[in-house]
Amino acid sequence: MRAEIIAVGTELLLGHTLNTHASFLSRECSELGIGVYYHITVGDNRDRLKEVIRTARERSDLVILTGGLGPTEDDLTKETVAEVLGIELVEHPPTRRWIEDLFRQRGMPVPSGNYKQALVFPQGTVFPNDRGTAPGLAVTHEGVTYVMLPGPPHELIPMFEKQVKPFLISLLPEKEVIHSQVLRFFGIGESYLEERIKDLIDRQNNPTIAPYAKRGEVTIRLTAKASNVQEAEERIAPVRQAILERVGAYCYSERDETLEQVTVNQLRDRGQTLALAESCTGGLVAQMITSVPGASEVFKGGVVCYTNEAKEWLLQVPRNIIDVHGAISMETACTLAEQAAQRMDADWGLSVTGVAGPSPAEGKPVGLVYVGLAERGRPVRAYRFTFRGSREDIRVRAAKQMLFLLQERIKKGELTT
Amino acid sequence: MRAEIIAVGTELLLGHTLNTHASFLSRECSELGIGVYYHITVGDNRDRLKEVIRTARERSDLVILTGGLGPTEDDLTKETVAEVLGIELVEHPPTRRWIEDLFRQRGMPVPSGNYKQALVFPQGTVFPNDRGTAPGLAVTHEGVTYVMLPGPPHELIPMFEKQVKPFLISLLPEKEVIHSQVLRFFGIGESYLEERIKDLIDRQNNPTIAPYAKRGEVTIRLTAKASNVQEAEERIAPVRQAILERVGAYCYSERDETLEQVTVNQLRDRGQTLALAESCTGGLVAQMITSVPGASEVFKGGVVCYTNEAKEWLLQVPRNIIDVHGAISMETACTLAEQAAQRMDADWGLSVTGVAGPSPAEGKPVGLVYVGLAERGRPVRAYRFTFRGSREDIRVRAAKQMLFLLQERIKKGELTT
Repeated sequence: MRAEIIAVGTELLLGHTLNTHASFLSRECSELGIGVYYHITVGDNRDRLKEVIRTARERSDLVILTGGLGPTEDDLTKETVAEVLGIELVEHPPTRRWIEDLFRQRGMPVPSGNYKQALVFPQGTVFPNDRGTAPGLAVTHEGVTYVMLPGPPHELIPMFEKQVKPFLISLLPEKEVIHSQVLRFFGIGESYLEERIKDLIDRQNNPTIAPYAKRGEVTIRLTAKASNVQEAEERIAPVRQAILERVGAYCYSERDETLEQVTVNQLRDRGQTLALAESCTGGLVAQMITSVPGASEVFKGGVVCYTNEAKEWLLQVPRNIIDVHGAISMETACTLAEQAAQRMDADWGLSVTGVAGPSPAEGKPVGLVYVGLAERGRPVRAYRFTFRGSREDIRVRAAKQMLFLLQERIKKGELTT
Repeated sequence: MRAEIIAVGTELLLGHTLNTHASFLSRECSELGIGVYYHITVGDNRDRLKEVIRTARERSDLVILTGGLGPTEDDLTKETVAEVLGIELVEHPPTRRWIEDLFRQRGMPVPSGNYKQALVFPQGTVFPNDRGTAPGLAVTHEGVTYVMLPGPPHELIPMFEKQVKPFLISLLPEKEVIHSQVLRFFGIGESYLEERIKDLIDRQNNPTIAPYAKRGEVTIRLTAKASNVQEAEERIAPVRQAILERVGAYCYSERDETLEQVTVNQLRDRGQTLALAESCTGGLVAQMITSVPGASEVFKGGVVCYTNEAKEWLLQVPRNIIDVHGAISMETACTLAEQAAQRMDADWGLSVTGVAGPSPAEGKPVGLVYVGLAERGRPVRAYRFTFRGSREDIRVRAAKQMLFLLQERIKKGELTT
């Protein structure tokens, strides 16, 4: 089944509202095995809306329209669908009563515009709206099903979940599911990763293999169609296995988790705790860790030691270490990590000091970053990196690198890193 | 000029990524006076992409495509545009050198896929990408201009602002400038703000008045068309004045700066310094402050005191304050702010402690947040807030509220807050 989603609303074209419905409905559809091939956004304009409906019916079996079911003259989604299909709308008495009751409860007369919300397709389906006045509608005409849903998310989402989803399932010819698994990688570029698995990508069919890069990370989405989830997972398994055999060293999650989620989970599983000392990342790592619900079980705290005073006074970094080696050095990174762990009684101390830019510091170039990692009862280690890009890029890459190092060390132990 | 925006990427159709580019580019275009009539999303599929490009060229003067410029075989935006237009791409030596240099700096050979990123339109425009390997491209063919931009937001946004916007302005038929000023507000809801200036919005013409809400903040963009910038500013001035007379109390920037930029600038102007103690925001405020280049002049450092131990050991918060009043209390907020300022010898100490959720803590409800503010030589103050929304919403709102409080206090002095 081929679907497309048409969002109707000039506010979307002005960029004042994000089209979150398209992604919500796409996720829901792909879980049902309905492939979404296009998203379209068009303004509250009858001619252009007609044109996109005509294009949609030529190429899709299912057309989901959102918005434009309100009471104003601007709202013309169902009227335009009816016009294109040559169907005359009829009044739906239960909806008319519902609207009248709503306004009676508010002690107001029904505004004339609201009566048109009771008009429906004579041979169609009505999805009552218990959060508003506009019911959802569906009609099938010449093999194409049109579903029209109200724009407000707090009306659309529950209506979809309770009424539209079962309706769509009833349309499906075969009971097919589309199931995805996401592998997440760090420390390998997208093009390198792709080169390493090029033959698998070239042969891809079911599952499909979709790599996607974002700021130092690469994700691979494996998507299979099958008659049920278990069968889809069985299709995915050998391909995932083949990918992991080649580039598994860079894979930090096989379940689409972020680096911070993986780190928090690993620490929680081991009953261990973490303390941070951040210089150039300025609190970013702490912010990432604490964005994970339940971080308080494993995160003792952190210091954003942006000045030498903060390093000395909060973490008792000896003045002479900074004087001799500089604040941006292996030695300072080690001491920061050790002191953070000791002073907060944590199992792990993770530190960073470097030059995020835009200007060099201590005569050291922009992008130079040292990471310190202290583990209770083990010698502290420091790592040196050079990152490129803007100040923001360098901070984000350094933060991710720190979490990647930590989760690798937790996973593999000291010897292998 | 009629524009449409085509986003290319299967991940968008699966609903895993929100199409934020369509709204960003729509806002930018409408500010330039370019009407956006359609948003289209299509997968990484040559035939469907061809079809949407063919439809677009029939109805639009400007077609902006995002995504699909990467090094992989899935990336086929420019190849498909070239195919539809019947143009052969040629190698652009400066881009090839840029890509080779990038990989040389990383000490890696250039993966074969990256060479195709140096292919451009022979009669077109190249927008160099200083954040990645894929340059942006533009080409005009039979009266229609096609602009192709890389998908990653941290590449697309600066490229648009620095290079594509001037390029689009050069396409506009009349030599008219479109000039904007942005006012930024905090602490007032969008609908309330709009109500206060409704008559101005209803009468808007030149300048236009566009309010836009995002997470606790509202911006108003005033955009005037005129024959030069000075004339545009003269048109904007009385409208801006009228808005500020009504809602100026909530305005923290008349120059489109963020709260963190305003705060850093104010502190720098006064030669003052700041120290932070963050509990529920977990480093977010430090991260915001340090994202501003030059923050090191004013930011002494911060403590992410996520546990009571961190509060005691790093900031010497007396145990009995936490025992008697709780970690989430006015008293703890005051002590954290004072101790942060004292221990880091800063002019200002700003602290936060609260419940970000998802679960209540210390028997206190999700969303309850205390902010402490200590100024050298003045009595410390604490403020109590209740925020609604997700964990992330509460953290972001709390962080913005802290910066808003601080900048107001710096601006107005103690008595008026």
